[in-house]
Amino acid sequence: MASFSSNIRTVEEIFKDYSARRAGIVRALTDDVDEFYGLCDPEKENLCLYGYPNETWEVNLPAEEVPPELPEPALGINFARDGMNRRDWLLLIAVHSDCWLLSVSFYLGAQLNRNESLYSVPMVFTTYRRRLFSLVNDLPTVFEVVTERKPVRDKPNADSGNKSRGSTKRWSGKKQSKTGGRELRGG
Amino acid sequence: MASFSSNIRTVEEIFKDYSARRAGIVRALTDDVDEFYGLCDPEKENLCLYGYPNETWEVNLPAEEVPPELPEPALGINFARDGMNRRDWLLLIAVHSDCWLLSVSFYLGAQLNRNESLYSVPMVFTTYRRRLFSLVNDLPTVFEVVTERKPVRDKPNADSGNKSRGSTKRWSGKKQSKTGGRELRGG
Repeated sequence: MASFSSNIRTVEEIFKDYSARRAGIVRALTDDVDEFYGLCDPEKENLCLYGYPNETWEVNLPAEEVPPELPEPALGINFARDGMNRRDWLLLIAVHSDCWLLSVSFYLGAQLNRNESLYSVPMVFTTYRRRLFSLVNDLPTVFEVVTERKPVRDKPNADSGNKSRGSTKRWSGKKQSKTGGRELRGG
Repeated sequence: MASFSSNIRTVEEIFKDYSARRAGIVRALTDDVDEFYGLCDPEKENLCLYGYPNETWEVNLPAEEVPPELPEPALGINFARDGMNRRDWLLLIAVHSDCWLLSVSFYLGAQLNRNESLYSVPMVFTTYRRRLFSLVNDLPTVFEVVTERKPVRDKPNADSGNKSRGSTKRWSGKKQSKTGGRELRGG
C-alpha cells in the first residue's frame, strides 16, 4: 500500500490528505460511477473503494498485510451491489467512505508530534481533534455530494421515477472469501 | 453480529453507544489488559478488538458477512503483538480503536432520521456531526486513557524502566490468513 502519508506533520496537512482522498472517492461515485459500478463485480473477491492523497480512486482487495498500516475501508462492497437498488448501494458506500475518511484522518492525527517515539509524547488531543474536525466538517460529506447529485425528494410534490424509497433493505451480505488475485484500477 | 444498534434515533443515543463501546475497550486495554494480551495470540487467525454497547469487550474474528453491518475495527491485531514493545502495541490498538469508535458513531449518525427509506431524507449533516463530535471529544480518547495509565515521560528528569522510546518500529505485519474457527470471549 502506497497510501500511507508518513510525512504528515500538521493538522492542515491531514486535512489536505482528507480532501484529496475525498475528491477521489467523490469522483468514483459521481463522474466515474459507471466505471466504478462495473469494477464492483460480485463474482470477484471482496473489494474495497480507496481514495488516495493524489485524488485518485481505486477498487481493490484489502491490504494484504494485517494489521493494516492505515484504517481500512468497508470490505466486500461488491457483494452487495446486485442485492440493492443502485442508488441505495452507492449511498451506503458513500456513508462507509465518509467514516473511513474520518478514521484515516484521526489515525494520522494521533501520530502528530511523534518527535521521539511513535507514541511517547502525549498530545493535547482535544485541541487538535477539534481543529481537524472543524476543517473536515466544513466540506460536504461524500454522502451529501452523492445525495445532492440525484436528490430523491428535492421536490416533495413532484412525482419521481426513483423507486428507492421502498428499498429499505440493508446489504445483502456474503460470507468472506479471501483468496485469489487482485483487481487493480489506477485512478 | 449482535452489535448493531438499530434502534438509535438521536445524537445522544449515539453518544451513549460510543461511551459504552469505549468503556469496554478501555477496560480491555487497562484493567483486563493481561487477559486481552493473552487472547491476542499471533498463532490464531486474524483477530479484532470489539467494544459493545453493553460496555463489554471481545477479541474475535472479523464479521463473517461482508460488507459488514457496521464499520469494522483493525484486523489482525494479534499478528503484531510479539513484534513490538508491549506498550507501543497497546497504544497502537488504542489509536485504531479510537478511529473505529468514531467511525461507528458517524456511521450510526448517517442513519438518523431515516423515517422513510434508509437514505432518502437528506439531513443537516453539518449540525448533527458537529454536535456528535463535540460530545465525543469531551471524553478522553482511549489513547489518552491508556497513555495516562502508564505515562512514559510524565517526569522527564526521572529514569524510567520503560524502554519503549527506542521502539519506533511499526506493526510487524503478517499476510492475511482468513480461515479457521472463531475465538470467542464474552466480556
